[in-house]
Amino acid sequence: MLLSKSLGTNKDGNLTIGGADTVALAKTFHTPLYVFDENLIVENMHAYKDAIDRFYNGNGLVCYASKAFSCKEMARITMREGLGLDVVSGGELYTARCVDFPMSDVCFHGNNKTEEEIQEAIECGVGRIIADSAEEMHIIDALAGKQNKTIKILLRVNPGIEAHTHEFIQTAREDSKFGVNISNGDAMKAIEESLRLNNIDLAGLHCHIGSQIFETEPFVYAAGKMIEFMSEVLKQLGLRLYELDLGGGFGIKYIQSDKPLPYVTYMQKTIEAVKEACKTNNISEPFLLFEPGRSIVGAAGITLYEVGAVKNIEGIRKYVSVDGGMADNPRYIMYQADYTALLAHKPYDE
Amino acid sequence: MLLSKSLGTNKDGNLTIGGADTVALAKTFHTPLYVFDENLIVENMHAYKDAIDRFYNGNGLVCYASKAFSCKEMARITMREGLGLDVVSGGELYTARCVDFPMSDVCFHGNNKTEEEIQEAIECGVGRIIADSAEEMHIIDALAGKQNKTIKILLRVNPGIEAHTHEFIQTAREDSKFGVNISNGDAMKAIEESLRLNNIDLAGLHCHIGSQIFETEPFVYAAGKMIEFMSEVLKQLGLRLYELDLGGGFGIKYIQSDKPLPYVTYMQKTIEAVKEACKTNNISEPFLLFEPGRSIVGAAGITLYEVGAVKNIEGIRKYVSVDGGMADNPRYIMYQADYTALLAHKPYDE
Repeated sequence: MLLSKSLGTNKDGNLTIGGADTVALAKTFHTPLYVFDENLIVENMHAYKDAIDRFYNGNGLVCYASKAFSCKEMARITMREGLGLDVVSGGELYTARCVDFPMSDVCFHGNNKTEEEIQEAIECGVGRIIADSAEEMHIIDALAGKQNKTIKILLRVNPGIEAHTHEFIQTAREDSKFGVNISNGDAMKAIEESLRLNNIDLAGLHCHIGSQIFETEPFVYAAGKMIEFMSEVLKQLGLRLYELDLGGGFGIKYIQSDKPLPYVTYMQKTIEAVKEACKTNNISEPFLLFEPGRSIVGAAGITLYEVGAVKNIEGIRKYVSVDGGMADNPRYIMYQADYTALLAHKPYDE
Repeated sequence: MLLSKSLGTNKDGNLTIGGADTVALAKTFHTPLYVFDENLIVENMHAYKDAIDRFYNGNGLVCYASKAFSCKEMARITMREGLGLDVVSGGELYTARCVDFPMSDVCFHGNNKTEEEIQEAIECGVGRIIADSAEEMHIIDALAGKQNKTIKILLRVNPGIEAHTHEFIQTAREDSKFGVNISNGDAMKAIEESLRLNNIDLAGLHCHIGSQIFETEPFVYAAGKMIEFMSEVLKQLGLRLYELDLGGGFGIKYIQSDKPLPYVTYMQKTIEAVKEACKTNNISEPFLLFEPGRSIVGAAGITLYEVGAVKNIEGIRKYVSVDGGMADNPRYIMYQADYTALLAHKPYDE
């Protein structure tokens, strides 16, 4: 069994992706070459989208986190399949605008947005700006005021949980450059401040608890904490927040021993946790947003390289050089991340 | 005292580089912005160049290692100041060709050159190709043969020394993706093979022992080993190698506690070691090449960023965001490298 359902072999024994011969692709388009299986991308998109319909009566929106792979064609596919788009820079917003992406379904994120970027986002009518701090809410409010507009925002908060792969921790002292903390009162203070700002509409909250997560518990825990806090906001400030964005972070398979859950499982468990917490805290169910990125494209893509120099140093090791590296994939050098390498002309060999 | 002699302050108290106000530069050209002091670049180039004249009767060539910072203007400055150019890719070769760099003074390096790149290098007449292995010598020979040309090559060898900053080790079992080892006999075998190849002229050897080195001993040691091996080649094969390329690796100052030696000191000590070893081994002095890169531009350059979001998490830490990162400087994430940060409007403050 090859790593992903997109991969196979053909009559020549060559590796295929989405049925296309990778040896032929390398010859035609040269290497290094990113190749994606559009069918699997679409299937992944619908796994998320359909879960919202099935478990939450369609009361939500799945946004593709374009940081995972941003180009015009991806924005077109996202649009065609009816998902929203999460952008984190002026460049990603530009890409969305190039294909006339419906701006009301764009979420603009980032912990260090420039004023120019915020201004552009307001001008072109993005549906939601995710404010990263009280200070940023003030900046957004002022810039929206200049354009005589009111802009919908979500506030990014830290619910006190950090997750990665099979580990997650609950933490009372959260150390993150992103968002404001619930635990130290910063989040409540920021929300209270928002009530005095006339050109923003604080619709709800956002959180993102980690990356490449293989369990459902962290999502379930985060969902519960967020709803609990939304209920606290209603009690303390009388403000009914009606949207909740739970971010992304669902794990994908890089090597054979990775065992990600079906995306529908994450979605079902998380949505159930939201519903239950709403009952427990006696608040109405919010409009839900999810922002998967890597789990939509990563599992559907490969990079093709060509082997060049091979150097065997007797008794030490054999070096095999390929025509790519840090520029096309910095994850190995940054995280010592593991990957699977296959030979395009004999993928079943080690 | 600020970090580099290029830096100073002006009457407004702003940081200057080469006399130019960095606050004004940021306003005019926006950030992130690389800024170099051309005067110091030129001064650094001449520190190397003049040392060859002074200590070695001009019998050598300093090549700027363009991997340190490659753009057309750098190639123009290098050309104007009479240095050669070290390129490691088709892209860097392209940059050199764009400014009509004299190709005879170009050295083409790399452990994984493509056939297309080698072909282009031969076609446009680069002065030296640095072959990384016996296999590559065969490829170069075949490609030169197709063009009815003979091309001068140097063979990259490992003299059994690894150096970095204040440490260096002598090693008998060298584990490097670059070059062939002297110790296990691979280098001698490759040189012997070169004698049977008609379209290459093996003029000499190349070595590069490490990066960001703050001592002279590793260079002195490497020079001695290389000359000794060249004498061994003459004895065993009757081949008189007449060029020696000792690479680069001279340290620069990133933080106040870094104490690099004046470049002239490295050069003087290394050249003295070459001369002495030639006497001891009774061979004539080779044409010498040096390839400094970082030490020519790094010490003469800064990057200007603009501070955006500042987030103070009480009792934990304060996050200060700037508008740059891994894309403009991957060294921090790759090596946890230390840098000096100065405030452009008050550089003497901590």
